Amino acid sequence: MAGISFTALTVQAQNAAYGTFVDPKIGSEGLGNVFVGPSRPFGMVKPGPDVNKASNSGYSPDLEVPLFGFSQTHVSGTGGGPKYGNVLVMPFAGNLDEVKQESLRADEQASLGYYGVTLKQYDIKTEITCTNKVAFYRFGFKAGAKAIKIDAGEFLGEKPIPDYREAQQFVGSEVEVVSDTEVRGYTRIRGGWNNGTAYTVYFSAVTDKPFARFSSYKNYKLSPGVKVQVDDGNKTGVLVYFDDAAQRNIQMKVGISFISAERARQNIGQEAPNWDFDKVLSQCRNSWEDLLKRIEVDAATSREQKKMFYTGLYHTMLMPVDRTGENPLWQSAMPYYDDFYAIWDTFRSSNPLITLIDPQREVNIVNSLLNIYQHDGYMPDARSGNSNGRTQGGSNAEVLIADAYVKKLKGVNYSLGFDAMLKDATIPPGGNEEKEGRGGLTDYNSLGYISNRFVRAGNRTVEYAYNDYCLAVVAEGLGRQQEARRFMKQSDNWKNLWRPITDHGATGFIMPKDAAGKWIDSIVCGESNGRVTSIPYTPLAQDWPVCVCWWCGFFYEASSWEYSFYVPHDVAALITACGGPETFKTRLDTFFKNGYYNVGNEPSFLTPDLYHWVGRPDLSSARIKQIISANYNSSEAGLPGNDDSGAMSSWLDFHMMGLYPNAGQSYYVINSPMLKQTVLHQQNGKDFKIVAKNLSDVNQFIQAAYLNGKPLKQSWIEHEAIVNGGELVLQMGPKANGWGAGTAPPSKPAFN
Amino acid sequence: MAGISFTALTVQAQNAAYGTFVDPKIGSEGLGNVFVGPSRPFGMVKPGPDVNKASNSGYSPDLEVPLFGFSQTHVSGTGGGPKYGNVLVMPFAGNLDEVKQESLRADEQASLGYYGVTLKQYDIKTEITCTNKVAFYRFGFKAGAKAIKIDAGEFLGEKPIPDYREAQQFVGSEVEVVSDTEVRGYTRIRGGWNNGTAYTVYFSAVTDKPFARFSSYKNYKLSPGVKVQVDDGNKTGVLVYFDDAAQRNIQMKVGISFISAERARQNIGQEAPNWDFDKVLSQCRNSWEDLLKRIEVDAATSREQKKMFYTGLYHTMLMPVDRTGENPLWQSAMPYYDDFYAIWDTFRSSNPLITLIDPQREVNIVNSLLNIYQHDGYMPDARSGNSNGRTQGGSNAEVLIADAYVKKLKGVNYSLGFDAMLKDATIPPGGNEEKEGRGGLTDYNSLGYISNRFVRAGNRTVEYAYNDYCLAVVAEGLGRQQEARRFMKQSDNWKNLWRPITDHGATGFIMPKDAAGKWIDSIVCGESNGRVTSIPYTPLAQDWPVCVCWWCGFFYEASSWEYSFYVPHDVAALITACGGPETFKTRLDTFFKNGYYNVGNEPSFLTPDLYHWVGRPDLSSARIKQIISANYNSSEAGLPGNDDSGAMSSWLDFHMMGLYPNAGQSYYVINSPMLKQTVLHQQNGKDFKIVAKNLSDVNQFIQAAYLNGKPLKQSWIEHEAIVNGGELVLQMGPKANGWGAGTAPPSKPAFN
Repeated sequence: MAGISFTALTVQAQNAAYGTFVDPKIGSEGLGNVFVGPSRPFGMVKPGPDVNKASNSGYSPDLEVPLFGFSQTHVSGTGGGPKYGNVLVMPFAGNLDEVKQESLRADEQASLGYYGVTLKQYDIKTEITCTNKVAFYRFGFKAGAKAIKIDAGEFLGEKPIPDYREAQQFVGSEVEVVSDTEVRGYTRIRGGWNNGTAYTVYFSAVTDKPFARFSSYKNYKLSPGVKVQVDDGNKTGVLVYFDDAAQRNIQMKVGISFISAERARQNIGQEAPNWDFDKVLSQCRNSWEDLLKRIEVDAATSREQKKMFYTGLYHTMLMPVDRTGENPLWQSAMPYYDDFYAIWDTFRSSNPLITLIDPQREVNIVNSLLNIYQHDGYMPDARSGNSNGRTQGGSNAEVLIADAYVKKLKGVNYSLGFDAMLKDATIPPGGNEEKEGRGGLTDYNSLGYISNRFVRAGNRTVEYAYNDYCLAVVAEGLGRQQEARRFMKQSDNWKNLWRPITDHGATGFIMPKDAAGKWIDSIVCGESNGRVTSIPYTPLAQDWPVCVCWWCGFFYEASSWEYSFYVPHDVAALITACGGPETFKTRLDTFFKNGYYNVGNEPSFLTPDLYHWVGRPDLSSARIKQIISANYNSSEAGLPGNDDSGAMSSWLDFHMMGLYPNAGQSYYVINSPMLKQTVLHQQNGKDFKIVAKNLSDVNQFIQAAYLNGKPLKQSWIEHEAIVNGGELVLQMGPKANGWGAGTAPPSKPAFN
Repeated sequence: MAGISFTALTVQAQNAAYGTFVDPKIGSEGLGNVFVGPSRPFGMVKPGPDVNKASNSGYSPDLEVPLFGFSQTHVSGTGGGPKYGNVLVMPFAGNLDEVKQESLRADEQASLGYYGVTLKQYDIKTEITCTNKVAFYRFGFKAGAKAIKIDAGEFLGEKPIPDYREAQQFVGSEVEVVSDTEVRGYTRIRGGWNNGTAYTVYFSAVTDKPFARFSSYKNYKLSPGVKVQVDDGNKTGVLVYFDDAAQRNIQMKVGISFISAERARQNIGQEAPNWDFDKVLSQCRNSWEDLLKRIEVDAATSREQKKMFYTGLYHTMLMPVDRTGENPLWQSAMPYYDDFYAIWDTFRSSNPLITLIDPQREVNIVNSLLNIYQHDGYMPDARSGNSNGRTQGGSNAEVLIADAYVKKLKGVNYSLGFDAMLKDATIPPGGNEEKEGRGGLTDYNSLGYISNRFVRAGNRTVEYAYNDYCLAVVAEGLGRQQEARRFMKQSDNWKNLWRPITDHGATGFIMPKDAAGKWIDSIVCGESNGRVTSIPYTPLAQDWPVCVCWWCGFFYEASSWEYSFYVPHDVAALITACGGPETFKTRLDTFFKNGYYNVGNEPSFLTPDLYHWVGRPDLSSARIKQIISANYNSSEAGLPGNDDSGAMSSWLDFHMMGLYPNAGQSYYVINSPMLKQTVLHQQNGKDFKIVAKNLSDVNQFIQAAYLNGKPLKQSWIEHEAIVNGGELVLQMGPKANGWGAGTAPPSKPAFN
């Protein structure tokens, strides 16, 4: 079957109306780093092409770079040192006695739940689909001797230096030829971006045709007919050979497990007992369709926009990964999710989008965080390979708990949730301040800010302040007044690093301060022949990664211009600190006009929407339209930065619908939609429709809004309004008319 | 072969002259908690009888309590919640369709490398020996149907409450019948005394006769003929049946591994490829003999004393466990040891004894601690199941590094060692202050003591002070003067909790203080009907475990009377603080006469020797003789407290030889030996002989000492004198004559 297409599929697959708009290659070129292979929603197995070992997704769009196999585990959209890329399979022909095999690609195709490619070197067509835990391969060989490599030693991101930071490190591997149709084993790896402890991916690889012979190997040295390569700390694998010229099509299933190889085999039996590739593909697409169809856009929407939107939904539901039943660390009746990578990225828009599409899923995710807290001591900010780590700034799992709380998600023990938040906020995480909890907490809790004796003092301080707001909200709700007061007060801590200096016309910035309370004016940047070079620390300065290491700057991955807008709970106070609404508007204008805004990273996700707080939602909408037009599209290079488990994508989707959440708080700001109509078919059975009447290239401004027929003057709506079902009608016109000027979205409320 | 005896053994085994004095049952009754089954020195597998699931060793001497099997992993001498007890095997007959099997014992025999018992219920004789990683069983069945249970679900110390503190918790298990002579699988458990993360014990169990049929089971439900019970979070096992009445003797080998079941099988192939029980037993005994013979006592020594002494050596070399090549967490060229359980117990006498017997072993142990520091972030104080935890007081791995350093052990990177020590001393361990590092460090480093806002503030403060001395010594040696000064100064920190109060005639005690510097006079102990009961906090008070939890008192497991003697680096200053030598002597007298001394725990290990520092080594010797006579013997109840990986035993052995180390320092105090002659055959080829001339029941006092023929006036010798080889002759007489009065053993030296 050459180049599977939706029209050629079975009846089930034909239903995949929304799935046809998913293009897994959007964001695969440039910085997006998305995974291009098939996956179920939040699926455990992510089989896909490995082309570049230094690539986070294993993929490279550069067709001049040869492909060296298909591994079963990947992450999507990440940066830094790669993770996973375990259990690699590679069909090949020709020189059958070589472990190393690679081929250039032709006819590469990626669609929802499907990846296909022709390996030019061997003229082998490879197609992949999957269940939750089983990768399903269909290899179209040509006549003649052929083979498949099953490698337990390969993985992404290995460095020649042992224990190199962010590199994955080999611990061990094992393979066993169980029968003439099955190879099983495992690979054990540690490290990677999150500097995690060792994780083990077990596998069972079964073929639909018996192999005639095999050759296992250790450290690339072949041992024909040797069934077992025991784990003695070396890289192992098996080549299986098919001699019969008639057997041109060979299928293989690779079940994986984090528990055992037997469990991996059982996963095949439970999820993919038969040899029907098309059926598994169809089931995979249906599992997506069930979710994608929950947000129904106007049928007349352009294909380009549909692709952007539904691929955005798709990206949002690739991670974290549902590993319920696959936790090797403890037993629990709670769900288990891994690959929070990282909450720092996803709390802002991805998790809120999941809450809209699939609130029970978000409840499960939050409960898994609490379960991790109960067993590992802290909730993660990032977690991968069953290991917490790393934190970039705040302890943002707290935002997820607050977000679930204010959106009244049922099925979460919020009292336990508050305990977990309180742990973050009060108990320093210890020797490794990147692993979990709040680094620099001793300063923060004694000084009210983090001084320059800790790295990332700037963004940690502003993020903790917002995290503290989240604690206060939950504490208040639980009737824990004393703690509510304490943390609400602490949520003002950003003010302690607010320095009234002026830069490019704006006054007041988050700036470094020492423990004695003295502002830091300059920082050491390099030394040569005994001469130390200092640079002034300005709001545009980036001390990292040149003067200090990537993780060692005052801010993480952004400037003070960016982070000084980060007071999501109290924009009103921020506006005051900046000199009032007009000054604030000018400051926002300068920020965008001068290019201080970084579209490709999360710290400024909310910033384009801040015009709402000065009564100018029209300016927010104009900025957002400009940002999307200039940076997002449906091409392979259609994402402007690391997609970060769907963070970029969910930011886009919200803004396409005309809503944007302020995660941890119960409302969404309203913007000019890019879609004429969006219907949210909610889990509770109630629909919520957003209609942009008269929307056109010209009519880009909201003239009036009606919620369930009643005029809505404010530029924001509560989550509850959506949950209750109904209709938000936005009357669009060619010019801003002052709609939304009267009320600003909420800022930090008065507390009892 | 009924009741294996040394005389009935092969030639190799007959050489086991010293091994005949090892009685694994010494310390198996009462508090000793020693493991009674066979083990190699520092051996990974420790197969033995399981009688009581709440017992730390699995064992109970009470023959009225039935035995329920033999598991492959145990610890020796520990207290608190049990650990291990994994992969249980049980031969049985009679009702073959019952998973639960148990039997009373008869003819129980334990000797070096051997355990034998007859299961009365079935009239089956079971014998066990082992290699490093393989347990070897010989079952003597009677005629008729018979079976062996191989259980992957059993373990010690499970509690019905999930996540119960110090309980082991089940994570998963798996079994597979691989052939008619092999079952393999694993058990995955977490928790236990050290509250560790999940560990996995893989196994391969092979029989020398094929089984006729089998029945696997899950949650005690049998599935005849079902080969695999996959790990889905349940307890699994296999019953294998032997029908042939002629096959009365069945042997079984159980290889274990922390890497994989294949590796467990490989361990069998490498360590015990054949079916010769006696040969394996003989090899096991030889491996011990190589070590035991390094300390040669006078041939005329009583059998009782030889048993006490050589069993003491044996106990000292059961743990930690050499798991080099079996580390599932990372690869390294360094050795890997686990089951430091705990260094708090063993640093005082066990590790110094290992240094004398087998310095290369001690180097390996220290290097494994540094390797753990490099990968897990901190050295452990305790570690078990590949997981650091828990700390009871100090960060005493530092003492091991200092001890190796001052004893000039080669092959340790002391610069790295100092880094590891510095980490402990400067970086708080974070949320779980029991896991590793120094709990309460923020107080200690800011106040110079730990205030009452932290638990175990008293012993943490005095132990950290000594740990700091150890840092200073290593820093000084490495030329790190600034750090040497800092930590030498900090080593006086015990003085900050020294309160000049008087109790039972003694003045000055380590007492609780709050963070503001105010002494604490009383503590809350209980509440009833709203009335709070306070008790005065006195030097004899024990707030734990009645007023507060076991781990929550001011001191851990001892009173201020005990811990106020703990200044091992500066006894001279302690004497001054107590009011001078005469007062100090009186205080020691009161301590022993009034029964404030606890023979059964480690905090007072050095205290009987403190008379040396007031010029009265004769009084030390008299106390020690009294202590040993009253508390130690060669019976099953011959140890007065938890043996703690050989801590009690090594304390005894040192004192029997007439030496006692002050761990972390380079000398040994000299006491009246209990042995007329001891020769240390050292790894460097040089012998050191200790001769107690004219020693008798009457002649118990050292009259004069000669080191290599030269009079030795001081009551201590340097480690170097031993390493260089030679002879220490002690002239014994019936009364103390002032020998050793002139010089006290070293106290804290003056530093540059």
